This record gives sequence, C-alpha cells and structure tokens, in this order.
Amino acid sequence: MHIQVVHFSAPSFVVIWDNGAQARFPAIFLRDNDPSDLHAATQERTSDLAQIDLTIAPANYQASAEQLQIQWPDKTVPSLYSSIWLYQHRLGQRRADAADIPRIYWGSAFIDQLPRFRAADCQTSTQTLYTFLQALKRYGLVIINELADDPKAGFAFGDLIGFKRETNFGRWFEVMSKPDPNNLAYTALALPLHIDLTNQELVPGYQFLHCYRNQAQGGDSIFADAFQVCTDLREQEPAVFAILLNTIIPSRFHDQDYDIRHRHPLIRLNDKGELQEFLLNAHLADIPDMEEDSMLAFYQAYQWLMRRLRDPKYMIQLKLNAGEMVVFDNRRVLHGRTAFNPNTGQRQLLGYYIDRGEVDSRIRKLAESS
Amino acid sequence: MHIQVVHFSAPSFVVIWDNGAQARFPAIFLRDNDPSDLHAATQERTSDLAQIDLTIAPANYQASAEQLQIQWPDKTVPSLYSSIWLYQHRLGQRRADAADIPRIYWGSAFIDQLPRFRAADCQTSTQTLYTFLQALKRYGLVIINELADDPKAGFAFGDLIGFKRETNFGRWFEVMSKPDPNNLAYTALALPLHIDLTNQELVPGYQFLHCYRNQAQGGDSIFADAFQVCTDLREQEPAVFAILLNTIIPSRFHDQDYDIRHRHPLIRLNDKGELQEFLLNAHLADIPDMEEDSMLAFYQAYQWLMRRLRDPKYMIQLKLNAGEMVVFDNRRVLHGRTAFNPNTGQRQLLGYYIDRGEVDSRIRKLAESS
Repeated sequence: MHIQVVHFSAPSFVVIWDNGAQARFPAIFLRDNDPSDLHAATQERTSDLAQIDLTIAPANYQASAEQLQIQWPDKTVPSLYSSIWLYQHRLGQRRADAADIPRIYWGSAFIDQLPRFRAADCQTSTQTLYTFLQALKRYGLVIINELADDPKAGFAFGDLIGFKRETNFGRWFEVMSKPDPNNLAYTALALPLHIDLTNQELVPGYQFLHCYRNQAQGGDSIFADAFQVCTDLREQEPAVFAILLNTIIPSRFHDQDYDIRHRHPLIRLNDKGELQEFLLNAHLADIPDMEEDSMLAFYQAYQWLMRRLRDPKYMIQLKLNAGEMVVFDNRRVLHGRTAFNPNTGQRQLLGYYIDRGEVDSRIRKLAESS
Repeated sequence: MHIQVVHFSAPSFVVIWDNGAQARFPAIFLRDNDPSDLHAATQERTSDLAQIDLTIAPANYQASAEQLQIQWPDKTVPSLYSSIWLYQHRLGQRRADAADIPRIYWGSAFIDQLPRFRAADCQTSTQTLYTFLQALKRYGLVIINELADDPKAGFAFGDLIGFKRETNFGRWFEVMSKPDPNNLAYTALALPLHIDLTNQELVPGYQFLHCYRNQAQGGDSIFADAFQVCTDLREQEPAVFAILLNTIIPSRFHDQDYDIRHRHPLIRLNDKGELQEFLLNAHLADIPDMEEDSMLAFYQAYQWLMRRLRDPKYMIQLKLNAGEMVVFDNRRVLHGRTAFNPNTGQRQLLGYYIDRGEVDSRIRKLAESS
C-alpha cells in the first residue's frame, strides 16, 4: 500500500494509492488531526481547533510512496502523514475496530452449539480469552466451565476482562431464596425471560452468573436471543416493530434505599440502523403514561412481543451445574429460570456485570497483542 | 380530591373528580396496572400481560368518593383503585417526580451566587443534604466546604448520596502532576474547559472534586454552563445547533490497559426536546470520519462552538482552597483549570463520579422522608 500521487486542490488533498484506491482529505481535517499534535505520553489531542484557520492551505507539500509531508503555514516543523494512516482514515468509513464483531443471532437449535471454555484456559492463554470474548460478542451467550469450587471463583474471573459495574445491588449479587426479598430473583419463583435493570440509564452490558451450588429440583436456566426475535419482528410485523421502537415507557426499581427510574423504548437501534439493545423487563415496567390514543396500539404491540418471546423456537433451556458460569449480553439475550423447590437442596449463584465499553476495550487490547 | 362519577364505555373508563378534572383510562391499562398485582415485598409487577385479553371489560364496577372498585372477569377478588392513584396516573402526563427539578442556566455572574454548603451540615441534616442536591440539579455546580483535613474526607462524603461510578481510572482519581501521565489532568498544563470521559457509552453524571492541598501558584478552577451556551446557540444559530445535534463523532481514550471508544453527537436532547447532555472534550476527540461533503460544515459549527465557549460572559473562575469540594453535573457543566507551577507548592485533588440515576434516587428518597 503505497502512495502514487497526491495533489492539493482547495479545500482538499486528493491521494491516489498504487492499488487504485483514491480519497479526498480536506486540508482542515489533516491540519486538525496532525499525528504530531497528540500528547506524547497521553495520546490525547493537544491542538486547538479554535486557533486554526478553517480555510487553511499548505505552504508546500511533497509525497513519497510511504508518506505525505505537509508544511502548514502556522507550524514550523513539517507534518507527516503515513500512507497507511491516510488509507485507514479515508472519510466516510469507520476506522477498523477489533471490537466490531458481526453478531450471529440464534434460536432453539443453538443449544447444541453453545460455546464453552474452560476457566483455566482463559486464565492461562490470552488467545483463549480473546476467542471467548469474540464468541461472547458474536452469540451474546457463552458458558465458562470448570471454575474452582469457591463462591468467589467466578467473580475473580472477571478481572481478566475489566472492572465490574456497580449497581444498587452492589458490585456482585447472590441469587438465592431469601426472606424479605427486594427483588423477585431472591425468591424461588419462576422468572420469565427478562433483561436485568432496565430501570437504569445505562442498562448493564454483560452479565456473569456463576453457579456454585445447584442441588435443588427445578431451577433450569432459560435464554433467548432477543435480536433474533426482533429481526423476525422487523421483517414480519414492521408496524409492531415501529411502535416498540418509538414508544417510550417508564421503568422503576424501588426499595428501602433506592428509587431508580428511567424511560426508554423497548428496542433501540444504533446509528447504522442495526439492533443496539433490547430492554424488556415486565417486572420493572412502571405504569405507562403515553396518551390514551396511542395506548391501545402500544398494548397490542407489547402483548404481541411478549407472546412471541415465549415461542419455543427462540428458547434454550439448560441446568447449570456447580462450577459453570453463564456470560451473556444483558442488552440482547433474555434470561430467566424455571421455579425450583428450595427444600430439595441449595441453589446458589453469584452474579455481576461488566459493561460493553470494558469488554470492547479488552478485545481491542487482546487484538493488539495477538 | 374525590371521585364524583365513573362510567365505563368500551374500551375505557371515564372518571370525573369533584374538582372538575376528568380522565379516561382504557380497561386494559387498569387491568395491567392493578395495584394488587405488585409483589408485596419487592413492589415488582407480577401480572402477566401475555395472559390478559386486550379487550377486557369489567364484570361489574362501583365507585365511591375514595375509590373505584372493579370486578375483572378473570380475577376472583375485586381490584381497588384509589381516587388519588387514578388522579396521579391520568394518561399523557408523567407521574410527579421529586427529581424533576427545573434547571436554571447561568453565565459569569453566577460566581456571586454559587451555592455553598458546609460538609457537616449535609452530614447531620437530611434537609440540608436535600437542599444541596436540589441546588446541584438546578445549577449543576455547588461547593461543599469545611471538609475535614483528610484526603479521604471528600470521598467519604459521597456515601451520603450513593455508590461511586467506577471507571478505568478506578473508583477515585487523584489530580496532581505525575511522571508518565496517561491523562492531561496529571500534568501541570492548563486544561481548557471540557467534560470528562466523553469516550464512554454513559459519560459519568456528577463529578466530585475535593481539593485537599492547594499551595501552588496558578491552578485556578474554571467552569461554564454548557446548557446556557447551547440555549443561546439554539436561538441565535439554529443551523449550527442542528449540525452539532446530528453529527456523530468518535471519542477515544487509550493507554497501556484500556482502549475505550464511543461515538455520539456533542449535544443530546431528551424526549421532551430539552437539553439532556453536552459532551465536548477536545482532548479525547478521535479522528472524525463523517463523509467529506459534511465535514467542512461540521468543522465550521465545531469551531464556532469552541470559540463561543471561551466567551468570558459564560465563564467563572475561582481558586479552590484546601477543604473545598466542587460538585458538578459532568454532562452539563464544563470544567478546566489554568496552568500551575508545581515548584511553588502542592496542588492535590481527589475526584470521583456518582451517576445521575443515583443522585435522582437519593433526591426521591429524601423527598419521601421530608
């Protein structure tokens, strides 16, 4: 990848590479993003756009196969832009990102292909850790197995990735039947498929749920890929999809210490129009407050969605064994459990969250070193 | 506030109160939000919309001044809706929320009215704590003074409100001149006005910055209310405002351990069209990647904004004394500092974040008890 030709025709440079690629770069873009204006130690931008003439033009410039050198009128030392840097920063396309891993959506047949990794392998091999995180982004659901027989083993595993996301339940939570529960998870009741903490401004990204005791009858774990459900919905019932995308509903959790509320639609897209998050939690749904004339249509769409989510073709069911930890995208994959009988044995899980930003960051750093 | 008349005319109930107010409630809304369907201990919703007939109608109903009693065909016990509950949940309006505190935007004259509270008063009086948090939401900037002469005194103060938001810098960060800084805050350089951690998916809500040593020359703190700047911008230059609202730009922080990136516009509105957050950090701005044909217009708008932010009419400047802590809305109020001379004395601050959700939750709980 070498530069073949560069010419400046105000306001932009045109660069042509030897593979035939061609791109235009406004002079102000190159001046503002001069690689030498990054702080040497912090890599933070130190130039000040407020001081730069937006119609800036080069005093002179010259190109070699490897780089473009520009003498800016307001700088003493020429600025250097490598052929690779220019190619990577062609306008109108996002820079390559190791964390941009295409998702593969799934239904009930996924139970036979569920990715599983040994905890020790992730701990001793950064390549295995990287493969695990890629699978997590791709499928949104992975099992880590052979964790040490220690309630804290799953929690310690998270340190391989990043810091935990604290919530009003603390830096971790224990799922077991408790007296005076402040959350339905702390009962022995069945938990229908849901997303955790939809009442938060930022709903936690990934959930890690480590099963360290499971001798009770019942208590199977259930999962469904909401992005598969939404993809089918978008195709088959675009009007329903549009209602769920555009109706903002309130969610709320409250107990003795907290009263945490947020308002959001059930489905959110990213700026490319792709599914970004799915935020259904019937238990934390607060009383809706849309206008009466949009309410019946919302209830129809919402019930349609809830019924569709129970279609067995979307769901997988499995019993977690002691020493297994499920890791899943809490803004994509719904989780729940069947009821269990607390008199037949202990069922104890320890859970925590790590947000999407930290998972993506770890993927980028592992990609750099692999 | 008493009920005067209720009648059902499918699909809705009409309620008229003795103050003349009138409201309509679809039957499905009342059935789905039956107060007796909240779990007694957790206050979570236990009804299952998927099982309810959307065209449900009452088997019978009767109203008194105090409540509406409905016998639903699919329930054995009549459901009760108090007059107050119905009035509070009239459709198309949000439920009253103690955390909905109107903001007052400010410019340079604010320096003479900056709200200040003694730390001990907030610690001993929940009413003072409540008043402090209301001022924080209203103005976005408050000073807590007379903190104990202890680097951890400001950190401990945060426990009055809620748990801290951890970031890649930890649960707290120390601002002082360091060798090998991974952030410009850890140098003695001037820091122009900015928002912290714009490279995060959720930019931290409130920043607490406790000054426990300040003997250096220079190092004045500077602040500006970006919502005042944006309000003026929206009125005076709607086209510039629209560009900043609609252009998504990438931000990035990277060091040895992390590479955290996010993409967002500089200004975001809430679902009522009000200013929700302002996310400018020139240092963390990554290389923009919009199409060439929208780039020059973006640079014009961005430079216009950056220059406007330096207008002295928006800025306040003050020197923090040891024992003072500034608390500010990090998604509204820009902060920075003038350069200081690390050879003239120590300048040490300890900072941390608490998110908007926890601040709002504390306000709601304080309102309940006051």
